[in-house]
Amino acid sequence: MLKQNHVDLNADAGESFGLWPMGSDERLFPLLTSANLACGFHAGDPLTIQKSVRLAKRNGVAIGAHPGFRDLVGFGRRDIALNPEEAYADTLYQVGALNAFVTGEDTALHHVKPHGTFYLRMLRDSDFAQAVAQAVVDFGNDLPLVVLGGPGGKVMQEAAVKAGARVVLEAFPDRAYLADGRLAPRSMEGSLVRDPTLAAERAVAMVTQGRVAALGGGEAEVRAETLCIHGDNPEAPEIARAVRAALEEANVNIRPF
Amino acid sequence: MLKQNHVDLNADAGESFGLWPMGSDERLFPLLTSANLACGFHAGDPLTIQKSVRLAKRNGVAIGAHPGFRDLVGFGRRDIALNPEEAYADTLYQVGALNAFVTGEDTALHHVKPHGTFYLRMLRDSDFAQAVAQAVVDFGNDLPLVVLGGPGGKVMQEAAVKAGARVVLEAFPDRAYLADGRLAPRSMEGSLVRDPTLAAERAVAMVTQGRVAALGGGEAEVRAETLCIHGDNPEAPEIARAVRAALEEANVNIRPF
Amino acid sequence: MLKQNHVDLNADAGESFGLWPMGSDERLFPLLTSANLACGFHAGDPLTIQKSVRLAKRNGVAIGAHPGFRDLVGFGRRDIALNPEEAYADTLYQVGALNAFVTGEDTALHHVKPHGTFYLRMLRDSDFAQAVAQAVVDFGNDLPLVVLGGPGGKVMQEAAVKAGARVVLEAFPDRAYLADGRLAPRSMEGSLVRDPTLAAERAVAMVTQGRVAALGGGEAEVRAETLCIHGDNPEAPEIARAVRAALEEANVNIRPF
Amino acid sequence: MLKQNHVDLNADAGESFGLWPMGSDERLFPLLTSANLACGFHAGDPLTIQKSVRLAKRNGVAIGAHPGFRDLVGFGRRDIALNPEEAYADTLYQVGALNAFVTGEDTALHHVKPHGTFYLRMLRDSDFAQAVAQAVVDFGNDLPLVVLGGPGGKVMQEAAVKAGARVVLEAFPDRAYLADGRLAPRSMEGSLVRDPTLAAERAVAMVTQGRVAALGGGEAEVRAETLCIHGDNPEAPEIARAVRAALEEANVNIRPF
Repeated sequence: MLKQNHVDLNADAGESFGLWPMGSDERLFPLLTSANLACGFHAGDPLTIQKSVRLAKRNGVAIGAHPGFRDLVGFGRRDIALNPEEAYADTLYQVGALNAFVTGEDTALHHVKPHGTFYLRMLRDSDFAQAVAQAVVDFGNDLPLVVLGGPGGKVMQEAAVKAGARVVLEAFPDRAYLADGRLAPRSMEGSLVRDPTLAAERAVAMVTQGRVAALGGGEAEVRAETLCIHGDNPEAPEIARAVRAALEEANVNIRPF
Repeated sequence: MLKQNHVDLNADAGESFGLWPMGSDERLFPLLTSANLACGFHAGDPLTIQKSVRLAKRNGVAIGAHPGFRDLVGFGRRDIALNPEEAYADTLYQVGALNAFVTGEDTALHHVKPHGTFYLRMLRDSDFAQAVAQAVVDFGNDLPLVVLGGPGGKVMQEAAVKAGARVVLEAFPDRAYLADGRLAPRSMEGSLVRDPTLAAERAVAMVTQGRVAALGGGEAEVRAETLCIHGDNPEAPEIARAVRAALEEANVNIRPF
Repeated sequence: MLKQNHVDLNADAGESFGLWPMGSDERLFPLLTSANLACGFHAGDPLTIQKSVRLAKRNGVAIGAHPGFRDLVGFGRRDIALNPEEAYADTLYQVGALNAFVTGEDTALHHVKPHGTFYLRMLRDSDFAQAVAQAVVDFGNDLPLVVLGGPGGKVMQEAAVKAGARVVLEAFPDRAYLADGRLAPRSMEGSLVRDPTLAAERAVAMVTQGRVAALGGGEAEVRAETLCIHGDNPEAPEIARAVRAALEEANVNIRPF
Repeated sequence: MLKQNHVDLNADAGESFGLWPMGSDERLFPLLTSANLACGFHAGDPLTIQKSVRLAKRNGVAIGAHPGFRDLVGFGRRDIALNPEEAYADTLYQVGALNAFVTGEDTALHHVKPHGTFYLRMLRDSDFAQAVAQAVVDFGNDLPLVVLGGPGGKVMQEAAVKAGARVVLEAFPDRAYLADGRLAPRSMEGSLVRDPTLAAERAVAMVTQGRVAALGGGEAEVRAETLCIHGDNPEAPEIARAVRAALEEANVNIRPF
């Protein structure tokens, strides 16, 4: 059923704030087909957004909005007990803010991908996930929402569909999975894959076989229309390069979804 | 030359933040033809924005974006030495964020009016003013930018025109003017007009004669396609009611620009 | 052991922010013996803190620090997944900031009482509670930490003792309790007691009998060295007045702990 | 009067925020005798403050508070039109917050040095400067306030003295001066001295001769009980090392004031 012959390569980016740098967007963007840009709540001030949109455009990278929790000091990684109404409004606000820079640079917003714990919360809280997806739908332009592919993303996928959102399925070659398809929590030993060669092998398996070795044994079922490389990882460019090379060798075409 | 037979009535609104209330939007909106909604930098969180957009829509009030300095604790009333690049980006961000709620509620953004010291800075800093106007132009949809009418608004008007923005001229019946057409600073005795009857007389003079008694003697030349009632003033609904009645009596039609 | 003949009367206060008002501190302070002042994270900017400290001093009200989650828009009412290290540091920061105004006005900090969900989290998360208490201990001056009295506050009490903090036991005459001594969640019907007469009766029962009628039947065991009146409640001054009168009638002396 | 035989060496530090790094404190602290730690308004969250205080203590570096404008995105480098009351309250808040970590680690606060544009504003706005100095005095402990030495710092020095603050005079070996003793604005060509050898020569001249070559010709009179190395400069450790070596060669003892 799988044996896809194409996939998108995305990374979270634009995550600097004011004078504080984050990530290696200039080295990473030439290796990507899409980038999820921080919208100001967990990272990314207006000038950083502008600069990131221009960098993406110059590199022909499709631009996604990357909304997160309003928590600069925690970089959007600490769960905040938003109710669905707040999640909806915070998402709409951030997508709109980012979109102004995208259209201001005469290009178009391509997708929405929630950040960090905003994304993780959508994996287990159906009402929250549906509210976020509803904001994407209400924003308009029929933007796709990136969700975790495979059985680990079931709650998020179903909530998105219920809201009427188009979904794009994602997998993480640089993150370990549990055998039930869920992402291994960052607190688990071995949850991050830092070796570019291993990440590349996993990427190929994810795309061409729809499964990947799970942490603790067995295999996780995954489904990937787009592969995410973690941009805040210092090895991100090396991983992206290895993943690209391995996918090309496996005759997988790398292009935006 | 004047003797206009119509004018818009606007107020700044949506300036609550989280649990903290501000203004009397529910009483004020039925009396307005347009409202400038805070965008989150000086006031207005996402849920407040959503609520305000809905209230405006329900009352048939045209919705403007009301960007300001990023300074909640100072309510956007303290000048911040932004350079033009920062002013551009901060404006674009705020207009985009607000617009998402406006289109999300199936209506359309009508204009942009800068807030407080953001507006005052545009009255004297041409580069700053042009940057803000450029952001409005680059946002698209040919949105009008509200600027101070008459000789007191010359710098702001010219900068807006230079950026290619449509301008709408504004006057303030509840604020005193100097004889050269500039607004009397809030620190001056008598700078605020709190008496509804007096504000109403001034409104009629502004629209029908293009001039108004100046603080310290003489007359100020003004020009008003829209009249602003200060929404953070507790007497705002009374002033708006008196202004409406006086304008109607003077056969001036009150409608959005 | 019970049949206390004295109790403190506290309220959360200083919860305005910039131009946005909250509470009725000027009417409420004359009725209190202690006040817990917001420290800037959930409410309370530096000028508000200064003003509140002065108001407390003028009224002879003992001043407590009232640290909360860093979440202005949510007023500290949304749980944020801080780890204990973050809870420690956020508490120390806030207590220190407030204390500077207290000593700057030549008075002394009297206690610490966590705000909203910060307090509620301490009722169920022992590590979090111990971290907050440790910050109070490390701040110095042997400040008491206000904790929920009775069986509903067991986790919080034990964690505070483990950290070496002095504890002061609190009860809430304007909040309903469950029969096991826990506070009824705000989402439950009847969780707030708005009738001053009823609140006053409950206050007397809490102090003199150590028990109070529970929501859903039965009685909750409570223990009160201090009684809290919710300052963000518009009826707060009426409730405080009724509580004072009833306590005095019952020969309970109202004084700071 | 000059020909000092000792001087302090300070740097601004603790200017990371959440996950975002800034400066090279670990390499720089062993070379300093005092460090000015960001207090949370322009940089420095509670955990960063705690970590920085511990690092300073471990290196035997005297700890100063480094208050600035409340402007994370602008890193305290954009002037904000605070009135003196606001400047007083913002200073007191920040010094108190930092101090809690200092005493929490069983050490003592040594001085206060304002940050960036907060400092620059004090060079020209006497009321603002006096308000900041008053906050330092009211904080207590007779903390010294670091001010620009020489004629360029006259306004700041006099305001501090008027408030009753102890002052410590500072010079900047890595910044150019104008012939009248003022710091050359950052916007001027040559305003930053990046060459460690040149900075070291200037440091020796500042301490032993009380003067230094001015940008644009002539000499600036300076006065230095402490020399500041800019910690956000990547070359900071190299400059600090060269300055130390040159001062030791000139028989100037490097120790805290």
